[in-house]
Amino acid sequence: MLSLADVEAARERVVRTARETPMRHSHTFSAMTGADVHLKLENFQRTGAFKIRGATNRITTLSAAEQAAGVVTASAGNHAQGVALAASRLGVDAKIVMPEHAPISKVNATRSYGAEVVLHGHDYSEAAEHAHMLEREEDRTYVPAFADEQVMAGQGTLGLEMLEQCPGVDTVVVSVGGGGLISGVATAIKANRPDVRVVGVQAEGAASLPQSLERGEIYERDAVDTMADGIATRRVGDLPFEVIQERVDEVVTVSDPEIAMAVLYLLERSKTLVEGAGAAPLAAVLQERFDYADEETIVACLSGGNIDLNTLTTVIVRGLVETGRYVKFETVLKDRPGALDDLISVISAAKANIYRIQHDRSSRDIDMNAAEVELELETRGHDHVADLIDKLEANGYEVDLLV
Amino acid sequence: MLSLADVEAARERVVRTARETPMRHSHTFSAMTGADVHLKLENFQRTGAFKIRGATNRITTLSAAEQAAGVVTASAGNHAQGVALAASRLGVDAKIVMPEHAPISKVNATRSYGAEVVLHGHDYSEAAEHAHMLEREEDRTYVPAFADEQVMAGQGTLGLEMLEQCPGVDTVVVSVGGGGLISGVATAIKANRPDVRVVGVQAEGAASLPQSLERGEIYERDAVDTMADGIATRRVGDLPFEVIQERVDEVVTVSDPEIAMAVLYLLERSKTLVEGAGAAPLAAVLQERFDYADEETIVACLSGGNIDLNTLTTVIVRGLVETGRYVKFETVLKDRPGALDDLISVISAAKANIYRIQHDRSSRDIDMNAAEVELELETRGHDHVADLIDKLEANGYEVDLLV
Repeated sequence: MLSLADVEAARERVVRTARETPMRHSHTFSAMTGADVHLKLENFQRTGAFKIRGATNRITTLSAAEQAAGVVTASAGNHAQGVALAASRLGVDAKIVMPEHAPISKVNATRSYGAEVVLHGHDYSEAAEHAHMLEREEDRTYVPAFADEQVMAGQGTLGLEMLEQCPGVDTVVVSVGGGGLISGVATAIKANRPDVRVVGVQAEGAASLPQSLERGEIYERDAVDTMADGIATRRVGDLPFEVIQERVDEVVTVSDPEIAMAVLYLLERSKTLVEGAGAAPLAAVLQERFDYADEETIVACLSGGNIDLNTLTTVIVRGLVETGRYVKFETVLKDRPGALDDLISVISAAKANIYRIQHDRSSRDIDMNAAEVELELETRGHDHVADLIDKLEANGYEVDLLV
Repeated sequence: MLSLADVEAARERVVRTARETPMRHSHTFSAMTGADVHLKLENFQRTGAFKIRGATNRITTLSAAEQAAGVVTASAGNHAQGVALAASRLGVDAKIVMPEHAPISKVNATRSYGAEVVLHGHDYSEAAEHAHMLEREEDRTYVPAFADEQVMAGQGTLGLEMLEQCPGVDTVVVSVGGGGLISGVATAIKANRPDVRVVGVQAEGAASLPQSLERGEIYERDAVDTMADGIATRRVGDLPFEVIQERVDEVVTVSDPEIAMAVLYLLERSKTLVEGAGAAPLAAVLQERFDYADEETIVACLSGGNIDLNTLTTVIVRGLVETGRYVKFETVLKDRPGALDDLISVISAAKANIYRIQHDRSSRDIDMNAAEVELELETRGHDHVADLIDKLEANGYEVDLLV
């Protein structure tokens, strides 16, 4: 099984490509939770995520002949970028197979880090199959995303940094997809500091580890559905599972809306951009998904920052809705001069700001002499939204909330 | 005139409320420019901007009697939050006057930092007038946003940190609104290191300093128009202007689209959220608005991170448009079964992803037997957009670009 010595050996190799990322105390999240919350900003890592650590350790431990033959992997995410940059920095040729419809930003980023991108297949499985074909035909070494001891050891270097940067830590919280990160981190932490608790977090729509731990054998989901694409895996790996069973104290889940709120809080309050998988640990802390004491020192590992800009826009809008700062609704007006004016006066008196109005007299769903209006407004919070709706209804408008 | 001793004295006071913010080397922006670019992450400052430094120095240098009587100021922005938190940490009562229609997020943030918010007036001038009335009636001390030596000295502590954190610096780039920040920073830098160049940056839509320097007297604009609300001032202050004339080497301007692109790059590549005023210095570097040598060590001061989430959403969408990753257009279909299918096949063959389609058969602008379609697509860059439009036109569609 993976040992502290493996992780410590990895550290000397990992510094060749990866940086030691900062740790920050968060006044905001400490005040919100009563705990003493620290953030490990691994979203500031090169390539924007921790994957470069494991990839570097895997590639540097290959023989000279293996390095000369090059590496290959399949991924549409952070692993692709981690392998690409690690390989190019170490002078090793890399081919990364990505599904044909992989997000353009990820394809471009992977290319920019110096790898050859091969677009193949409709999904990850087809891409992986093609990558294994290249492994055989071109004699390349396949770099696994998590189920590999050298990869796990590389990710574990994050655990060493967390102990050094926050020696008073009581609990470390880490997200879990395939389990490579948490198995490395738990190994580093438990060997040094058995008193430090390690908590794993999965997205509800991709949770398999709680079931696996309960059954004592790996449970594989039929499908996954979460905005946290970095941990959207159907099962954990065999090697990581062994380590997790022995060294992880607790595993909890968080929902996508909870993850989205954590992304938004990190952006708005901490001014830092984190992807869904990276925000899940903070979401678990904010939702008190596990017990912690007042002033307990908690490190949330923000493992990556590669969130798609479109996803981010959706997260921002949903966050505004959930905190009552944005409302979208439909109502019906008599189609006569002044009708829109009257509606706007009510809104203005309620002190809501209008973002957008769409006025449609041609909708087939309503009377010929009426008009449908869709409004998007900036509001001050849930009480303000309730007050606004009351005022509209008191003035005879039916309000149909759209978000 | 403001001296290094003033700034050094301020430093001992400023640490009571403000943190020393980190400096980061940026591989991305160094590669993009050929210079050695470092980022001073003042967006990580408490309250999200540098203003707490000056406010703290002003408040701690008041007499005990003045502190007991409390302070007052007018602001709809970062100064409001800086004074609010500085005062509450120092145990001084603060009233902050904000215009009635100030952004809700700023009002809430200012309250959360422990100040009493007074909503008064339609614009900043009316709010300021009311604040000066409170100054007289309640015997409070007015804390100016920039035209005050203690405020300028407090902001100057940022300059001391930049010299210490990046001793090899050749050029420091700082944004300019009223001039409080740059006058403090230039004082700290020129007294210690006269060889270090200090460059000021204004938003085109709020530029007054280049004209003022040329004339040798302060020029005041009639109006301002920029997304960088933190530096949207009509003129610089008298005291800052004196210092700027003597100690700032160069002043340049950047446009709003250039600022927006810098905000987007910082978010996407550096995973950090910066407001318009905070991104302006990086925009000036990226646009080579001033000359610099290969490998010249440049520190861009990211002075704040309090960007409105709605503004941010707009910035993201505009950034996607400018980099060819989002396109929105309108076209007209024959209104017959299969017409939409045909259009979608062309788009799909061109490998663009569809975000949103709006299909409207009732528009009054077109023939009775036609339908208008509005499409929003994800694309791979400008070449891909051009290729897509070619393919649509070759298939007989007229394409009317909407963004």
